[in-house]
Amino acid sequence: MSSPSSGPERGRPAGLPVEAPVKPDGDRPTGVAVLGSTGSIGRQAVDVLERLPDRFRVVALAAGTNGRELDLQARRLHPARTVLGADGDGLAELATRDDVDLVVVGTGGLISLRPVIAALEAGKVVATANKETLVAGGHLVMPLARGLAAAHRPGDPRAHPLAWLRPIDSEHSAIWQCLVGEGMGGVERLILTASGGPFLGTPDDLSSVTPAMALEHPTWRMGAKITIDSATLANKGLEVVEAHWLYDVDYDAIDVVIHPQSVVHSAVRFVDGSLKAQLGTPDMRLPIQYALTFPDRLPSPAAAPDLISTGRLDFRAPDEGRFPALRIARVAGETGSRAAAALIAADEVAVARFIDGTLDFPGIPRLLEAAVTRFGQGPDQAPDLATLAALDAEVRGAFASRPIGTGARWS
Amino acid sequence: MSSPSSGPERGRPAGLPVEAPVKPDGDRPTGVAVLGSTGSIGRQAVDVLERLPDRFRVVALAAGTNGRELDLQARRLHPARTVLGADGDGLAELATRDDVDLVVVGTGGLISLRPVIAALEAGKVVATANKETLVAGGHLVMPLARGLAAAHRPGDPRAHPLAWLRPIDSEHSAIWQCLVGEGMGGVERLILTASGGPFLGTPDDLSSVTPAMALEHPTWRMGAKITIDSATLANKGLEVVEAHWLYDVDYDAIDVVIHPQSVVHSAVRFVDGSLKAQLGTPDMRLPIQYALTFPDRLPSPAAAPDLISTGRLDFRAPDEGRFPALRIARVAGETGSRAAAALIAADEVAVARFIDGTLDFPGIPRLLEAAVTRFGQGPDQAPDLATLAALDAEVRGAFASRPIGTGARWS
Repeated sequence: MSSPSSGPERGRPAGLPVEAPVKPDGDRPTGVAVLGSTGSIGRQAVDVLERLPDRFRVVALAAGTNGRELDLQARRLHPARTVLGADGDGLAELATRDDVDLVVVGTGGLISLRPVIAALEAGKVVATANKETLVAGGHLVMPLARGLAAAHRPGDPRAHPLAWLRPIDSEHSAIWQCLVGEGMGGVERLILTASGGPFLGTPDDLSSVTPAMALEHPTWRMGAKITIDSATLANKGLEVVEAHWLYDVDYDAIDVVIHPQSVVHSAVRFVDGSLKAQLGTPDMRLPIQYALTFPDRLPSPAAAPDLISTGRLDFRAPDEGRFPALRIARVAGETGSRAAAALIAADEVAVARFIDGTLDFPGIPRLLEAAVTRFGQGPDQAPDLATLAALDAEVRGAFASRPIGTGARWS
Repeated sequence: MSSPSSGPERGRPAGLPVEAPVKPDGDRPTGVAVLGSTGSIGRQAVDVLERLPDRFRVVALAAGTNGRELDLQARRLHPARTVLGADGDGLAELATRDDVDLVVVGTGGLISLRPVIAALEAGKVVATANKETLVAGGHLVMPLARGLAAAHRPGDPRAHPLAWLRPIDSEHSAIWQCLVGEGMGGVERLILTASGGPFLGTPDDLSSVTPAMALEHPTWRMGAKITIDSATLANKGLEVVEAHWLYDVDYDAIDVVIHPQSVVHSAVRFVDGSLKAQLGTPDMRLPIQYALTFPDRLPSPAAAPDLISTGRLDFRAPDEGRFPALRIARVAGETGSRAAAALIAADEVAVARFIDGTLDFPGIPRLLEAAVTRFGQGPDQAPDLATLAALDAEVRGAFASRPIGTGARWS
């Protein structure tokens, strides 16, 4: 598996065997579109892409609001197209351009779901750091990735859905790396590690937690939303739902283990008693690059972890009593994509209100539970895009303006 | 890679592509010969094979001296042939029988080298726990494994030499498991873990170490020879040499890390900064079974490690001042197979004499260094089988009867 492969073959009927992994058109660099290029993931993706000019050509960049950074990127990378503030349809148009082979999704929120679906329908590879794509849209995107994989013969790296829908999250990248070359029939459990966030042991009373305290992540430097989500463990709960969709593993076979050093990024337990783990330093450029160059590994700017200087790795069980968001997210995932979509919308509101000061820290999981209970139930747990968008707006509308103090209950 | 594969295809010209990994003759169970069936590895291999009767049929058993246990095994397994006390030629005849597809090598010493060569020449799969095969004979066996691998197309699990010469050592199995699905071009370093043995921190004065103290391994229950080798770190030094041959990696890219809990069995560092590790409980039935069922994983009697109850994993650098055997073995490997063969013969003598009481603990590495210096030099560092056997006898003759006390120097 040392040949380059990052996109579908063109002009070849689906289902025919191929000889070996190849790039789309022989030696032509892989054409890349970066959605959300000025965000944390997007900028790091651009950094990785700029270091591999022989292999990749950035053909399209899309940003939400940061026109200044987008201009700077465009001057360095000379993409064929840049877009500022596009909607889902605009991003989908960008993602499905003829000169795009691979789409990096660094945007937050539900806006990414339409371009991801469109890209997969057009046979593009998608590398995504966006949680909504899988948490709310797993039932929409995974069948597309499976369909693309089914066109390739066993032994070809493209014969697995992960070759088409590639995770960028360090945890899911770790699991992917542990699964390379393994049959899914041999997998027994997935083990997602969590740093535990800044409140692993203290303070006793989480109601005294301020936004400044929650924004101090012990090991990773990330955006504000994901840092707060790490402090509540909501982020780990969403990752459980993502893992369920990506790897087609039941919820009761997905464990969360607290690992304060964040060196073991996640692990897989196999039926024979073997456990494989992927370790790394906290540098997102590693999983971003792996998602770009899979199945190859190329030198990257990410430093390797040094076991001797690290010295010690600790593991313990998560405290779901103190951090109920983990359990709430798992239950939402088990309920279905409607409940998971309600959770995501509620979490955006809850984190924004915690930062604004209109919700205390324990109020975040309370709001999540209230939203899932009120809006996540019902028979339609595989909603289409329009239904997801309507639900998203409904949840935001219901919770955005209401004060939630300590002890308040939503039902 | 989920289809069963454990032997070469019959009746198919070398070099032709194959569709998918298959068993030798469709659904016929893989025929297995166990060399050294009554030893520690052999008995555990028999245990694993008895649990997988649909997949394996034991067709031949060979033991050195334990006729009683061999009889018991024969009554349970009904092999077509059993042999007691065979020489290298006798074992080679057994290993190359028409009904044998896979040979498990559990014998100690140089006697295994001839049957391993014969088996690979006959296109059999070899699963070996024997160190001499690789430490002294790596230059003889690896080209055969590479030749068998070259007959298969990329993406076929049999296209790698490890599919033909499969390691049973837990460390080398760990590295193999981390390499599955990875291209060797992406590998930067191998990281062999070592428990550190019983004298990791104490006693200060290793000359006071008795055989009873050295035979108390902290994490693994093994034979006496390998347990003493673990206490001196000579075992880890031999594993460095084995890893060099198995994975075709330079000595300066093979690290040894002390890991007292023996949960991380070894790890691989990749060029992109990623590190993959395999973890397990100390049960040799896991690596034995993996070597039998590769590329599949099947349920095994080995328990999986529990990160939460383990709680903590420690790593530190080895102390080569206190345990010089590690450095001596590495230098012997770098010198070549003549030096490595001298080391192996000397180590058998040294351990036997330490147990007999005619050599103290620090005398073991001194004897190793003396033997490598005196017998391991010379231009022919890729000796043939006959030369290796003559060298083995020469080293044993030179060191077996001479008293080596504290402070004695051999040159």
